[in-house]
Amino acid sequence: LPVLPDVQLSLRPGIVDFSWGHPDLALLPAGDIAGAAGQALADAGGAALSYGAEQGPGRLLEQLAAWLARDEGAAPPLDQLMITGGVSQALDMLCTVLTRPGDAILVQSPAYHLALRIFHDHGLHLVPVAADEGGLQPGALAEALAGLAHEGRKANLLYTVPVFSNPAGVTLAPERRPAVVQMAQRAGLLVLEDDVYHQLWYDVPPPPSLYSVAPAGPVVRLGSFSKVLAPGLRLGWLVAAPDIVRRCAGSGMLDSGGGVGHFVAHIVAAYMAEGRLDDHVVTLRAAYLARRDALLAAMSRYLPQGCSWLRPGGGFFVWLRLPAGVDGTALLAAAEAAGVSFVPGARFYAGPAGEDGRESCRLAFTLLPVEQQKEGIRRLAAVLAGAP
Amino acid sequence: LPVLPDVQLSLRPGIVDFSWGHPDLALLPAGDIAGAAGQALADAGGAALSYGAEQGPGRLLEQLAAWLARDEGAAPPLDQLMITGGVSQALDMLCTVLTRPGDAILVQSPAYHLALRIFHDHGLHLVPVAADEGGLQPGALAEALAGLAHEGRKANLLYTVPVFSNPAGVTLAPERRPAVVQMAQRAGLLVLEDDVYHQLWYDVPPPPSLYSVAPAGPVVRLGSFSKVLAPGLRLGWLVAAPDIVRRCAGSGMLDSGGGVGHFVAHIVAAYMAEGRLDDHVVTLRAAYLARRDALLAAMSRYLPQGCSWLRPGGGFFVWLRLPAGVDGTALLAAAEAAGVSFVPGARFYAGPAGEDGRESCRLAFTLLPVEQQKEGIRRLAAVLAGAP
Repeated sequence: LPVLPDVQLSLRPGIVDFSWGHPDLALLPAGDIAGAAGQALADAGGAALSYGAEQGPGRLLEQLAAWLARDEGAAPPLDQLMITGGVSQALDMLCTVLTRPGDAILVQSPAYHLALRIFHDHGLHLVPVAADEGGLQPGALAEALAGLAHEGRKANLLYTVPVFSNPAGVTLAPERRPAVVQMAQRAGLLVLEDDVYHQLWYDVPPPPSLYSVAPAGPVVRLGSFSKVLAPGLRLGWLVAAPDIVRRCAGSGMLDSGGGVGHFVAHIVAAYMAEGRLDDHVVTLRAAYLARRDALLAAMSRYLPQGCSWLRPGGGFFVWLRLPAGVDGTALLAAAEAAGVSFVPGARFYAGPAGEDGRESCRLAFTLLPVEQQKEGIRRLAAVLAGAP
Repeated sequence: LPVLPDVQLSLRPGIVDFSWGHPDLALLPAGDIAGAAGQALADAGGAALSYGAEQGPGRLLEQLAAWLARDEGAAPPLDQLMITGGVSQALDMLCTVLTRPGDAILVQSPAYHLALRIFHDHGLHLVPVAADEGGLQPGALAEALAGLAHEGRKANLLYTVPVFSNPAGVTLAPERRPAVVQMAQRAGLLVLEDDVYHQLWYDVPPPPSLYSVAPAGPVVRLGSFSKVLAPGLRLGWLVAAPDIVRRCAGSGMLDSGGGVGHFVAHIVAAYMAEGRLDDHVVTLRAAYLARRDALLAAMSRYLPQGCSWLRPGGGFFVWLRLPAGVDGTALLAAAEAAGVSFVPGARFYAGPAGEDGRESCRLAFTLLPVEQQKEGIRRLAAVLAGAP
């Protein structure tokens, strides 16, 4: 009988695979987490293993609030903070608590494709809102809202990755942020701010969160230990107005099972109490910066004319615009035959992919060592040289 | 500023509280789990901390399948088994994947009240099906199905706790099981078999699962490490037909975040590999049997005439039928004033509570030491002696 896999990652021999937005396993601090697990159980005993407080254990909420204050200037009040099972679980929970099938959700376009799958599972009607180099376009948001109003519909939610976006690597410009929040306020829209890359900047820190523009206002800020610590912990947080926190923490699932990831939350609280998270983020920044720069250098050196890209200031991805007439989806088969893979751009578009969607692809630089990245780009360049 | 709690449990000074279906913290094996966490990270390294396989890590699925075979005679094929975040998360996920608001769900009555809250969050229409000392009544199920058909509706799901039920402590009689499964098959109904108490029997083992009546048929069997190991792990499993497993494992939430509780699943796999789970279940059985028997002895000794109860063969709860005319909800305030608490029976009924619902209450015996239970029952007896 075949043995079932332990992990999601599945690398095919001979293929340099830029498609995985995963960390390098060697960068996951297994030893320190083992130490924190022992410490958490020594500190809390059985309480770390019983049913957890629905909002998350107080000991982690306090650590986390202080940690978030470093980027934001002020710590979120504890009634505005809640532990989640990562952004994916948080999005799922928010959809269950706040939406019904048929509700409209505006989504930054291009957007993280698997978040779109979560919205789809909840029967939501996806409405794309274009983003450019400065992130979500306020004009496009106004148009989308007007378009829905014209149809007699109302959007409940707006999903955006406003910092080092997945897939495009763009950050919402500071001067656009008040306009986005004000439009959301006027339209009765709740903004789901997927801010998982915030701490992973490689040049300069990003602007403070959208949430901080109007605290306890129309923004739910979603964060995760997946990118800054370890995805297998399945632990994250949200910052939101107290009534949103109460509605989530008061849901049937948490009333029944207690807080999400209770034991793991104790481990992370012990890890943070030892002051290890900041050091680890510094390590990650240095490692990912080197990989980003190696990827960009290889792209500059090898990719043919007609290719273009933005230098992402952080995060996991470079968004490659292919030469005119080259469709990313069509290119994929030839690329894999030549030993290189990526995610075609069209996958990140909610509606029928426009020209921009088709002629692009996403390259993740966090998983692969520098030498493999260089070889992968050489192969991609060779395929593009032979492309129609 | 007040410190937020770490755990869900909140005991009020001076009150013997029978309302918590929680384990005694002293019975949670903190030391062994610390050891298993270290072992899991030593064995798997970063792979224990990365994005997990959506179905759960193969190493835990294999251990679990072998463990389940002991009760069931045969191990579930690995494509019929999936790791969940406990029954609460599994029910939430199944509702997202399989239902839409307005769908009808049949629920054993009385039923676990917090499962009902999860169904409510998904907008489901709850239809009670009466249970008696032999569990779910096939006649009542047939009537409920006919009633729905008469209204032009169809139920999608049936929720039942067929072994040592929460709250009533009853087990579905072996001779009723084929009828229930056949009715489900004919009606196109998926049975959600919440079987979390299966291993916690104190007299004789319960019958094999409803799932085993028609494997890969119309039953999803839900299990959990919450009752047999530790609730704070937030880890459980489901056994279902391969297409149900595929639909759950293929959901957007798991595609995005990887398998639920990936790191914790590695810890439990290491714990099981050391052969500790069976020993621990034996320890729990002995401890809970002593508490059940102490509670029943105190009830026999102190409670006034007109009270009645069944001796539960396992699980966490005794269902107390109060004397005629005594309403459990009305009794609660007087009981708490006298220093004892419980969950009134009416909370476990989906519809308007019938007479059986009102004149009852649920007593949990797993959390409180024997002497406290005795004192609590003395207080309850005193209140009942003074009740109208």
